[in-house]
Amino acid sequence: MIRPALVLLAGLACGKMTQKHVHVATIMEMLHQATLLHDDVLDQARTRRGMPAANRIWGDTAAILAGDLVLSRVMACCTGLGSKTSSEIAAMAGQICRGELHQVLRRGHWQITQQEYLQFIQDKSAVFFAICCRLGATLSGARQGYVKALESYGLLVGMAFQISDDLQDLLSGPQPCHDLATGTVTLPIIHMLEIADAGTRRQWTKRLDSGTYRPNELAKALVDHGSVAYTNQVIKGYLDQALRYLDAIRPSRPRQYLTSLAHYCAGPRS
Amino acid sequence: MIRPALVLLAGLACGKMTQKHVHVATIMEMLHQATLLHDDVLDQARTRRGMPAANRIWGDTAAILAGDLVLSRVMACCTGLGSKTSSEIAAMAGQICRGELHQVLRRGHWQITQQEYLQFIQDKSAVFFAICCRLGATLSGARQGYVKALESYGLLVGMAFQISDDLQDLLSGPQPCHDLATGTVTLPIIHMLEIADAGTRRQWTKRLDSGTYRPNELAKALVDHGSVAYTNQVIKGYLDQALRYLDAIRPSRPRQYLTSLAHYCAGPRS
Repeated sequence: MIRPALVLLAGLACGKMTQKHVHVATIMEMLHQATLLHDDVLDQARTRRGMPAANRIWGDTAAILAGDLVLSRVMACCTGLGSKTSSEIAAMAGQICRGELHQVLRRGHWQITQQEYLQFIQDKSAVFFAICCRLGATLSGARQGYVKALESYGLLVGMAFQISDDLQDLLSGPQPCHDLATGTVTLPIIHMLEIADAGTRRQWTKRLDSGTYRPNELAKALVDHGSVAYTNQVIKGYLDQALRYLDAIRPSRPRQYLTSLAHYCAGPRS
Repeated sequence: MIRPALVLLAGLACGKMTQKHVHVATIMEMLHQATLLHDDVLDQARTRRGMPAANRIWGDTAAILAGDLVLSRVMACCTGLGSKTSSEIAAMAGQICRGELHQVLRRGHWQITQQEYLQFIQDKSAVFFAICCRLGATLSGARQGYVKALESYGLLVGMAFQISDDLQDLLSGPQPCHDLATGTVTLPIIHMLEIADAGTRRQWTKRLDSGTYRPNELAKALVDHGSVAYTNQVIKGYLDQALRYLDAIRPSRPRQYLTSLAHYCAGPRS
């Protein structure tokens, strides 16, 4: 429920929360749930938030259709908004799909760069957070300075969130290294392969390719190469930047909550 | 391209075709393409219109995301329409998903009734045709009689189309009996199991369950039980009814095209 929280808190931080905020917050959560239903099929996930994933209970086909059904409800709910707001939501939905699609089409390419990875996660995740904050602010009639600050905050929190999520996937979670098993390369791996000597890089690339590694062995290699520390440092960089944007906002209880939410998003959450 | 043709021809049959008709026709075709992208993943289809299906070329994951991307474009295009029209499209999209979902959740249930089957295909297919016709007519500012007649025409043509499509799947096509392989029961099978004696019914149910039949053997059984003739008769019933609704429309070239289109939809198309 991070996305609806961002919409509502951004609105409150700008001094106003209306029925329209609740409407948009609901749409954002529904859109997120639709992408989760599809993601879990794509990733052959077994669980979602500690419970069996929909695709495990009802099968892939029903889970895809359920995602489509939720998307059709998003469409229906958007018709109640002005065309400007619904255009923004539709454009964002497109950007999320393109981001995911780019990342999927690069699966198994172990040599992707940090820059490429950061672009993927910006499109597929961080933009979602940014638009939640922007809409929350604009629906409150906030001035441009506030809108921009909150949008930037959202984008940076979203980056921290996704990098942290990807790090956790490698180190823990219900199915460790699930991203890697699908060929999805994330920051700690990119860093390790960049920093390792040629022999180690060749060896790890081969093992990642063939899936012949144990999760705890990989975790040790990531720690030894400083890749976990590096990743945590990148996350902290985004978090600090995000919090600086909040300085532009008048101190208030909602601003405090946005600070806490940023810390929550940047930390290990499971 | 049946759906956009219905929008445009319904408009022309009511005496007017505007830019908005083209806009809606485009949205309808995009929505259809999105469902095809997902359907081909769900059905593990190998070809689409004689070409390799998207899921075969780029994989299931990319095909699902591509479908989602097209849906996000549908959302974006809907924002340019009035909220009444876009609400109708969104509601229709939801009904299509629900229809598909109901049918999917009944896969492998060989005892479904004709009535259940007709409800599935009405929701997942015929309503799509009906709304294309209704929007085409309403965007022309047609009077209620014309709108209702064209909507009914669309619904009935859609029923004939889907039953014909399902019949062809059993008798021919690039992958004969593909529906059956996924456990999807269609009218000819329902009829045969209804009309067969208890022993034959038991035997066929067992064979359908285990997939131990040859397509030409099944085709012969369907012919022998009169199920192909029965299905063709049902299709003809919908076609005739559809054409009768066109009588309410002033004779014109577009009305002639709607007649031809109905015959095309009801016949074997491949």
